[in-house]
Amino acid sequence: MSAVRVHNLAVSLDGFATGDDQRLEAPFGHAGTRLMEWFFPTATFQGMTGDRERQAVDPATEADDSFARRTLDGIGVEIMGANKFGPPGWHDDPEWRGWWGENPPFHTPVIVLTHRPHAPIELEGGTTFHFMSASPAEALEAARSLAGDLDVRLGGGATTVREFLAAGLVDMLHVAQVPILLGRGERLWDGLEGLESGYRVASETTPSGVTHVVFDRR
Amino acid sequence: MSAVRVHNLAVSLDGFATGDDQRLEAPFGHAGTRLMEWFFPTATFQGMTGDRERQAVDPATEADDSFARRTLDGIGVEIMGANKFGPPGWHDDPEWRGWWGENPPFHTPVIVLTHRPHAPIELEGGTTFHFMSASPAEALEAARSLAGDLDVRLGGGATTVREFLAAGLVDMLHVAQVPILLGRGERLWDGLEGLESGYRVASETTPSGVTHVVFDRR
Repeated sequence: MSAVRVHNLAVSLDGFATGDDQRLEAPFGHAGTRLMEWFFPTATFQGMTGDRERQAVDPATEADDSFARRTLDGIGVEIMGANKFGPPGWHDDPEWRGWWGENPPFHTPVIVLTHRPHAPIELEGGTTFHFMSASPAEALEAARSLAGDLDVRLGGGATTVREFLAAGLVDMLHVAQVPILLGRGERLWDGLEGLESGYRVASETTPSGVTHVVFDRR
Repeated sequence: MSAVRVHNLAVSLDGFATGDDQRLEAPFGHAGTRLMEWFFPTATFQGMTGDRERQAVDPATEADDSFARRTLDGIGVEIMGANKFGPPGWHDDPEWRGWWGENPPFHTPVIVLTHRPHAPIELEGGTTFHFMSASPAEALEAARSLAGDLDVRLGGGATTVREFLAAGLVDMLHVAQVPILLGRGERLWDGLEGLESGYRVASETTPSGVTHVVFDRR
């Protein structure tokens, strides 16, 4: 059966996957871009940015990229929470089509979990957003029917990942721990006592100072 | 001026430095010994155990020991919180002399922060426990007067370390992050937003799977 995988989920040392006060101008709230600075110069991110402005790929980021690029491998569908798709209030904006422009970096169907009905949005490059009010298990069943033999990427945010972890539905979790203290925001790890049992856990600190932690039960 | 250093403070991936339900039979509460398994086979711990039973030193722990042994270097005094000195209720036990037997591994004066007055306890090997009701800054002033030119070790627990960090009094903090999720207990990182500013921060994962994170401003 296809696996459920989480990639490149950045958390602060104190366990916050996003800061306080998320809004259109600040998708990560008061965290700004600090949780993702390691990711931007990687070949993987630069390859995702499509028509948008690219930076040079920094060869020093190869170690980070060896983790980052796994997100592209063998994925047939993504599931994301409503808070990843847009800032608070996006449901009421009929023009909102996600953060990613006309050619989003998914290139697969994407299931957006939301309690508000919404017509599908089909964009360029193979990305179609489907909106669904569903439990994690129901969403995963729908995702697998879209993924064929390929895997399911669980794209975040923290609340969505935590719910799938608590339900025992995640086969691989890659967290990039950034050595900053955010102090407030959305915690990834709450309520997951004993999560490590049943997984192999491996950690590696890269030259950027980020520690990649991988839980894997495949 | 002598530096204030924290060594070998173990936390779970979700930031708990000890578990719930600490008591005489379980100094780390429901965490048991899981936060310290990496430390027990090190040469440093084995050298500390005095008359008690020793394990063999495991050469595979050399990388961990390269962090662990720094705790012994150039320390003139330790400050610890009341919860490190004994289990709940130790104040009421006139026989309680700490967890460490007649020859404790400190070999210096130790200041125990407590609101209850207590006569000093002088044990073998140079360890004398002094009991003091004081703010972090006051305790540090007293500690420095005992330390001479040597450094001050801040021995924990988590609440004591957090208070000294919040007061800006810690010059070096070594945390050993163990890849388990405790879910409950005493959090180290709460209320320390932006702690990293003013420190160099370095991380390293050792073969034991522990990630050593060092904050240093010396």
